[in-house]
Amino acid sequence: FAGVSGDPTPVAGNGLLSRRAFLRGGVAVGAGALATAVHAADAAPRAVQPWQQVPGAALAPTGAPSPFEPALERKVASLFGASTPGNGVAWTPLERLHGTITPSAVHFERHHHGVPDIDPARHRLLIHGLVRHALRFDVEHLLRYPMVHRQVFIECSGNSFPNAGATAPDLTCGQIHGLVSCSEWSGVPLALLLDEAGIKPSAKWIVAEGADAATMARSIPLSKALDDAIVALWQNGERLRPSQGYPVRLVLPGWEGNMQIKWLQRIAVTDGPQHTRDETSHYTDLLADGRALQFTFVMGVKSVITHPSPGWLLTAPGYHDVSGLAWSGSGRIARVEVTADGGATWADAELQGTAAPFGFVRFRLPWRWDGGPAVLASRATDTDGRVQPTRADWIARYAPNQRYHLNAVQAWRVDEFGELRNVFL
Amino acid sequence: FAGVSGDPTPVAGNGLLSRRAFLRGGVAVGAGALATAVHAADAAPRAVQPWQQVPGAALAPTGAPSPFEPALERKVASLFGASTPGNGVAWTPLERLHGTITPSAVHFERHHHGVPDIDPARHRLLIHGLVRHALRFDVEHLLRYPMVHRQVFIECSGNSFPNAGATAPDLTCGQIHGLVSCSEWSGVPLALLLDEAGIKPSAKWIVAEGADAATMARSIPLSKALDDAIVALWQNGERLRPSQGYPVRLVLPGWEGNMQIKWLQRIAVTDGPQHTRDETSHYTDLLADGRALQFTFVMGVKSVITHPSPGWLLTAPGYHDVSGLAWSGSGRIARVEVTADGGATWADAELQGTAAPFGFVRFRLPWRWDGGPAVLASRATDTDGRVQPTRADWIARYAPNQRYHLNAVQAWRVDEFGELRNVFL
Repeated sequence: FAGVSGDPTPVAGNGLLSRRAFLRGGVAVGAGALATAVHAADAAPRAVQPWQQVPGAALAPTGAPSPFEPALERKVASLFGASTPGNGVAWTPLERLHGTITPSAVHFERHHHGVPDIDPARHRLLIHGLVRHALRFDVEHLLRYPMVHRQVFIECSGNSFPNAGATAPDLTCGQIHGLVSCSEWSGVPLALLLDEAGIKPSAKWIVAEGADAATMARSIPLSKALDDAIVALWQNGERLRPSQGYPVRLVLPGWEGNMQIKWLQRIAVTDGPQHTRDETSHYTDLLADGRALQFTFVMGVKSVITHPSPGWLLTAPGYHDVSGLAWSGSGRIARVEVTADGGATWADAELQGTAAPFGFVRFRLPWRWDGGPAVLASRATDTDGRVQPTRADWIARYAPNQRYHLNAVQAWRVDEFGELRNVFL
Repeated sequence: FAGVSGDPTPVAGNGLLSRRAFLRGGVAVGAGALATAVHAADAAPRAVQPWQQVPGAALAPTGAPSPFEPALERKVASLFGASTPGNGVAWTPLERLHGTITPSAVHFERHHHGVPDIDPARHRLLIHGLVRHALRFDVEHLLRYPMVHRQVFIECSGNSFPNAGATAPDLTCGQIHGLVSCSEWSGVPLALLLDEAGIKPSAKWIVAEGADAATMARSIPLSKALDDAIVALWQNGERLRPSQGYPVRLVLPGWEGNMQIKWLQRIAVTDGPQHTRDETSHYTDLLADGRALQFTFVMGVKSVITHPSPGWLLTAPGYHDVSGLAWSGSGRIARVEVTADGGATWADAELQGTAAPFGFVRFRLPWRWDGGPAVLASRATDTDGRVQPTRADWIARYAPNQRYHLNAVQAWRVDEFGELRNVFL
């Protein structure tokens, strides 16, 4: 079967190949392996191209994307109508990105009453409650503290909600699953600030509160605050942007995005959860048996194939690399399996790079498309042994209107024209 | 001595403290540790802030920096006059960034004849010469290949040249050392494409050529091309920007920036180096004894303190965190030492995170500034045992006009007003 070099051993049905296909090794390889990609070249190089015949553009203070690329933008939606344009979401276009870092400009957003325009000189962070010394920090001094730097995904607990309906919506990967992004966050360990305030023995929780017009607030167990919570001031090298909580936000690796309070202005140390509006009216999970779960902090184990996915066109049969993202609220991905025949057979994908805990992990597996129908999907397992559920199993667990913590397997149907579409397995 | 919690053990002169100062542990801590940072708070939270009294801004397709932050921009210079505005450099503002990722918009640039505006549909990459099958790749098909993803610094071999003169220029950290940046690069292993072309036994080198108006070209040993060279299509998640080589550039981890050919259009496989214009008229190193070194590919071991550095003002004595970046062309940093007394005494800094090979490494060390004069500097050692030289040792090695591979120790003088300035030790 032409089209593959390296080790073309099939590892599962409908064309999935060994991870070593197309990778260098001790195997014999031949030219034309990706036949549609290469063409026998003339002996001589091509003529000088037009863009080599004139001086290029001058240097500029900032670089910009190519005019030949479509603008890299998020889809935006107001969730409760045009009267509250700041209560809504913006989805990261996952299918337009590669690697593991999300550019700050297209990090997902979920706001409850818009993006405040905060003067950092007037912003304060108060730590009070069950502490020996209530403390107030201004931004200038927070910037003097020791910083930690971590690549961490943040996922909205409502991510993937378009797939909670009865029929599979005709949307892109980002429009379904793009309420998750991954950045390098730099900031002060919250534990350090709490230590400075002096935690009283009766303290068991904190309540974190934002300075937005919704005064978004969530209760957080003290153990998490002391473990790995970050009072973040920087994202992907630069200072936070207003839409990410400027001048300061909370980062709670692996936990629900809405708890990672943006525009952080207050931390109250308490002896119990406060049952704030945002953890009673929202962000509870109604089960099929009528009970509701509260405080389901840890995000699930999840994966999604980004390349190819709807919007990408397979222009020819032959070799295609299947690539996607996996992440887990428990911190580490152990395994990602891929199917090309709608779940009849699965094969282990390669996990790439030295994945940081709580970061995105990229996986990949070679695939030889025969030009016929196929259904691609991925299934992740984390190091706690949690496995990404089927959609049927996920649906069976919850009441009909549940939209949070949807981490079911995502399938893309490939048709004979090479187009991809969201389908439910 | 007030101002420090944790373990305030001095580890070197003029206020350098244990890495554990201000970090949680089994030690008793008290309030007011960063006395100028915290203030006893009123029992009640503050009044509702003005930005909480009106709805915030609506969601938007892209996020933007805060209007309260100065624009994050690079200094730009044309090296050979106004008639060739595209032959010059743009420096990353290192002192304005934190963490290890450089946002793509402010990645450093060095161009020899400007930035071409390339239509990817018309761009080709040719691999020819000592191969069994000359191959031509279009961008659409390159995007189908397996991708690797690596966080890699790229440094111009001329980085830090302002410090090659007789007197220390009054410039910021970025204006001196900002011809280095670190991104996540995603692309196709060059080894894979060369295997597909079929390398002949007589092949020993490649020549990589760009599609800019300067037709920038460099000779590269085949061993490097097969080891870890990447034909990069993506940077920090998004497609390359024109100023970084759109649609495709070469990445050679740890090697001179100018060899990592942008707008890559041709790879000729050869039996020896080609002594191109760009490796004879430029990028050779004149020694003190009159000999010149050619093909000094591997960048040195280097570090620089970014916080504090010129442009940052120490507003009060007491605790300050000294933080900086280290990197090495050999791949891994083993150690960074910091001095606060101009090199009389040194202490080991903390190396943060799980540093990727060939990535930036952040280091930090607590410092208790007594309000008097101080001279801060850092000195890196890599896992090959290479040590960052003093400026005197570096100067002694080279002829007077040498400007490449300047990796000498950088010192910042702190005056009694808390201002910082570039000085030569």
